[in-house]
Order: sequence, then structure tokens, then C-alpha cells
Amino acid sequence: MLYFEQMFAGPASARAFSFMAPMSEILDFDKEGGLIAAVVQDANTRRVLMVGYMSREALEKTLTTGHVTFYSRSRRQLWTKGDSSGHYLHLKSIATDCDGDALLVEAEPAGPGVCHNGYYSCFYRTLEDGAWVENDTRAYNPDAVYRTQETKAKR
Amino acid sequence: MLYFEQMFAGPASARAFSFMAPMSEILDFDKEGGLIAAVVQDANTRRVLMVGYMSREALEKTLTTGHVTFYSRSRRQLWTKGDSSGHYLHLKSIATDCDGDALLVEAEPAGPGVCHNGYYSCFYRTLEDGAWVENDTRAYNPDAVYRTQETKAKR
Repeated sequence: MLYFEQMFAGPASARAFSFMAPMSEILDFDKEGGLIAAVVQDANTRRVLMVGYMSREALEKTLTTGHVTFYSRSRRQLWTKGDSSGHYLHLKSIATDCDGDALLVEAEPAGPGVCHNGYYSCFYRTLEDGAWVENDTRAYNPDAVYRTQETKAKR
Repeated sequence: MLYFEQMFAGPASARAFSFMAPMSEILDFDKEGGLIAAVVQDANTRRVLMVGYMSREALEKTLTTGHVTFYSRSRRQLWTKGDSSGHYLHLKSIATDCDGDALLVEAEPAGPGVCHNGYYSCFYRTLEDGAWVENDTRAYNPDAVYRTQETKAKR
């Protein structure tokens, strides 16, 4: 909520308008059928943690709650990272690129790892000598965090 | 070429095979119609520079030349960042995420800026108080680098 209050000064309707106006001018949701790629970077370590996709709704929910929220292409619904695991991504800032078709989200991860496989970053495999090699050790046990396949799917 | 030689030890045919086998097992090019989102991060400063899309061909060209190469969705062809501007992205490493549907490319930019608008990073606008605000100054004059609209489109 603190983030929300920092972003918008007026009453709820004015807030929504002040956000939507510049967003609709700059952001291009059309290239990917209503979605924009969103890169999440740890605001402190600068490690890239994950890439997701945001719809307008996902972006608005991210801004109003301060919890980074995506649109799941496979489940066709919004999902807030951390709703199942508790490992929320606390929003620090959002930037967009020259074409307005990608977002760079700086966030502070609440948990030890963002990846549902137990790693700090989803990018835990690097190409070496023609093969993908793990570049990190597990930060937590995903089986203890995601008790069912359903919650694992939700992350 | 040094990068290429580091990656593959055998003759050309063996190299291609050793690369293709693990790539086809892990990477998911199907979600975006043959493309994977590729985040480029400065290997030294850790700043995220841009997001592009790679086809299998673009990834192979990136690996064999050491110059980061994308597939342009608007022009429907490969484009090597720097071919017009000289601002090549020298490949340092490539990681993939848990789902195999995104790439994280660490690179050293040859020029002062990656963005065709003259900025160091394409993510030069940050959302502040409901509006997009420039968060950086221009690193070079794009009109001097991209002489025609055609070369600007190619970047």
C-alpha cells in the first residue's frame, strides 16, 4: 500500500486515470495479444530472477498491491507470485523499454528463492560446452513449500 | 570466434550436434511460435540492457559468431545488434530458466549505448507518480550513428 500511495496522490478515480493515461500512450500490449514480457530483477543483488508476462490487469494489480503479479499463459488467469509459497516479490520500481513492449521490474524477493524448483533465480542453468549446467545450488526445498501439484503449478 | 571455440571442441558437424541435442531437450520454442524471449544484461554493470526474441537460428548465430543476434518480429528476419551501429553485444554467457522459455544473455556492449534512441539501456523510462519519466541521460547521438531510417530500423 505504501507503494500505491507513493504513486498516486488523488482519490481512487483520479489515481486510476493518472495511471492509465500514460500507460496507454507508451505500453504496447498488442504485439503479444494483450501481454507484455516482464523481467524481474532483484533490486539489491541485480540478479535477474525470472521472466513473466503481464496483462493490463496484472500490471494494475502489481501497482495497487505492491506484489508483482503476472498473467499465466498456460492457466489463462492472473497469478501473484507468492500466493502459494509466501515468496512474494515486493515491487520497488517498474521501467519500460524504447518500444514499450517490455517491462523491467525491480523487486525485493520475500523468500529465499523465486524459482518453484527451489533456486534463488529461475535462470539456474548456463550453457557450457554445449550443455545446460546448473550454476547455483538450491536455496530451499520446493517439496516443503509447495505441498501439492496444484500449489506448485500456482507458485 | 573465441567463444565458439570454448563452447565446442570437435569438428563442425560434431559441434552442431553437441549443441542441438541439449538445446532441443530444454528450450521451449513452441509457446511463442518459434521464438524465446532473450533478456540481455551487461555482464559487468548488471544493468538490464534490452529484451529481444531469439529463434533457433538466432541463437545458433549468436553462439557461432559471439555477437548477440535476435529475430525481428516486425521485419521477420534475423538481426545482429550492432550490424548498423557498430554497437555489438559481445556474448559472455547464456542461461535459461526453469521452463526453458526464456534466455538470460550476459554480454559486453561494444558501444556507449544499446538503445537506438541513444541511451545506454533500452529501459530508460521509469514509472513515477503515474507517469513514465526518463531515468538516464543520452549516452550518444543516435542521429550520428543511424544515418537513415533504414539503418535505424535495423539498429
